[in-house]
Amino acid sequence: MTVSAEERLARATISIVTEPGDVRCLGLTRELGGVRFLDVLHEQPDLRPELTAAAARLAGAQPERVLESAARRGIRFLVPGDDEWPTALDDLAGAGVLQARGEVPVGLWVRGPLRLDELHGAVAIVGSRSSTQYGDLVAGDMAAVVAGAGRTVISGAAYGVDYAAHRGAVSVDGRTVAVLACGVDVAYPQAHRQMLDHLGEHHVVVSEAPPGAAPFRIRFLARNRLIAALAQGTVVVEAAIRSGALNTASWADRLHRPVMGVPGPVVSAASEGVHELLRVGGASLVTGGADVLELLSPSGEHLLDVRRAADQPRDRLSVPARQVLDAVPVSSPAPTASVARVAGMAADEVARLLGDLAAAGHVEQLPTGWRLGEEMRSTIDQ
Amino acid sequence: MTVSAEERLARATISIVTEPGDVRCLGLTRELGGVRFLDVLHEQPDLRPELTAAAARLAGAQPERVLESAARRGIRFLVPGDDEWPTALDDLAGAGVLQARGEVPVGLWVRGPLRLDELHGAVAIVGSRSSTQYGDLVAGDMAAVVAGAGRTVISGAAYGVDYAAHRGAVSVDGRTVAVLACGVDVAYPQAHRQMLDHLGEHHVVVSEAPPGAAPFRIRFLARNRLIAALAQGTVVVEAAIRSGALNTASWADRLHRPVMGVPGPVVSAASEGVHELLRVGGASLVTGGADVLELLSPSGEHLLDVRRAADQPRDRLSVPARQVLDAVPVSSPAPTASVARVAGMAADEVARLLGDLAAAGHVEQLPTGWRLGEEMRSTIDQ
Repeated sequence: MTVSAEERLARATISIVTEPGDVRCLGLTRELGGVRFLDVLHEQPDLRPELTAAAARLAGAQPERVLESAARRGIRFLVPGDDEWPTALDDLAGAGVLQARGEVPVGLWVRGPLRLDELHGAVAIVGSRSSTQYGDLVAGDMAAVVAGAGRTVISGAAYGVDYAAHRGAVSVDGRTVAVLACGVDVAYPQAHRQMLDHLGEHHVVVSEAPPGAAPFRIRFLARNRLIAALAQGTVVVEAAIRSGALNTASWADRLHRPVMGVPGPVVSAASEGVHELLRVGGASLVTGGADVLELLSPSGEHLLDVRRAADQPRDRLSVPARQVLDAVPVSSPAPTASVARVAGMAADEVARLLGDLAAAGHVEQLPTGWRLGEEMRSTIDQ
Repeated sequence: MTVSAEERLARATISIVTEPGDVRCLGLTRELGGVRFLDVLHEQPDLRPELTAAAARLAGAQPERVLESAARRGIRFLVPGDDEWPTALDDLAGAGVLQARGEVPVGLWVRGPLRLDELHGAVAIVGSRSSTQYGDLVAGDMAAVVAGAGRTVISGAAYGVDYAAHRGAVSVDGRTVAVLACGVDVAYPQAHRQMLDHLGEHHVVVSEAPPGAAPFRIRFLARNRLIAALAQGTVVVEAAIRSGALNTASWADRLHRPVMGVPGPVVSAASEGVHELLRVGGASLVTGGADVLELLSPSGEHLLDVRRAADQPRDRLSVPARQVLDAVPVSSPAPTASVARVAGMAADEVARLLGDLAAAGHVEQLPTGWRLGEEMRSTIDQ
């Protein structure tokens, strides 16, 4: 399917005159197509307020100029129907009618070599801007594991968890996508200019807002739905009770995509929102990238072993030896006969096995009898 | 229902000659009664191995002497049918046939004034002996909240989480029960002698093993089922992958009692077992005592508010003011007309509201237009 030049231009125009995630304008564009929706804006005398605002901006819109300037700077404009269009976004059709923002974007402004139709089961890793060292560490490691396994890491290029996630993916030569609330040519936050340039050169930076657009609060909310929709699942690493990351998580949930959360200390405000998500929000607990891969992969792939600590000396003993060991007191020594009684075994066999256990250091013999050796004493509750 | 002196003596004898949690001996005692089971031990020539060991110990057992000596030291021996018998333990009937240990104990040796038939929806708070400061802090706070709400805290008097849990309950003049793997007159670990004496004097210390019994590994496993059975629900605060606390949790699960886990840093080995319990073990995540109370109380009691951070300045604004605020750029200033356009509102109303917002410090006016005030900028993702 090829998109006509007229439709592409119409959609660029709509992208310029409407706000990201404007449910009414985007929904009508999806239903009517860009060209017809523009006609509506131009022709209809009696429009709803959202449409009036967009119509008022039509006169000043210079879509050809914006598209040309963008192209000169390596920014392409994707629309539904393009080969590279990420069809995962089509799940946003009709979504958000009851929310502030929603719907399928009319197009995406894209900077960078990574193709958006090849995201390889992308994972959104999001979280607090005011993350802790712990959150940054976990986000970075998780992104490295996920990207190392060939999946794309999606995040929002903000301070904190977002930054750590992008960096983690880059550190293993993996793929990562930054979805912005402002234009893909705008460095926000300014301290991330270098990272954004790196991502724009080697990965990809995406926005629904046209080049030059500034970040508004409302655009962050609109942006969050794109992160959730582009990813196969969303992980929240750290989030205070009102973090924007929880908005991304609720979008993922609304789109029936798995929502995952990384636990943290219950005394850390930065984990409070995640714990709430895990406690009552139905999110799945993940402790790292391996858990994420297991959860998102088809059954059988990336299956984790049941976790166990390294084998302990006790595991390597024969069953009778273990039975004897379990019957040896922790601290006050007991004679062989008493050990045999507790073990429910013959005294001579117990005596022989106690000798073996003592040779291995598992038990020790005192004048009054046997007790556990020091190492065994320290693992008595395990 | 009164228990005959003969039955009580028989059960004391069985407690002395069998190991705690011996599924076969305990099960037969439950089915036949203590007196008849003793007859079996005395009379039957051809016994199964577990019974042979118990029968062999009969000759040396001096139940009257043990009971007398116990009573002299303030230790009572409770059996099923006594008014004070905690009937919650009867749920162990038939349990454990496939495990190393199980069944209803033949009796309980008890030291301390707290009555075991009045546990008021007890909560077991258990965890690693080698807990971290974090685990101790959380366990102590949780026990204080739970005990402060009138519920009894049950734990095992071990180092680490157990100790912190008992101490937390004591700190608010709450009730706490220590269930031991050794005799209630044995100080294990020795460093906890003072605490155990305090609990024995003001709370209660309980064991299935007779006075003087030493702690064996197998007795810890048997003890864990009593903790789980006595409590309405079990919380694991910190547990490595092979911690004994997980054994207590699996007993609680087997008895259809709620299992709860406190998350911690995913990089902490001391939380690894809890995370596994939360990830695949079906346990509920709790972040503190309030969560535990909510989970265990009848619907409607102790219901928590949905958590929210303290109100932010934005929350106190009128809807139109908030709409304007959301449309103000984060850093690069925009003129009033542009703000009005993004907000979809009339320019004169927007100008008035921008003035109010500026007076409150929420936005600032620069020569080229409006942008968010500093405090607002820092909460843009919230």
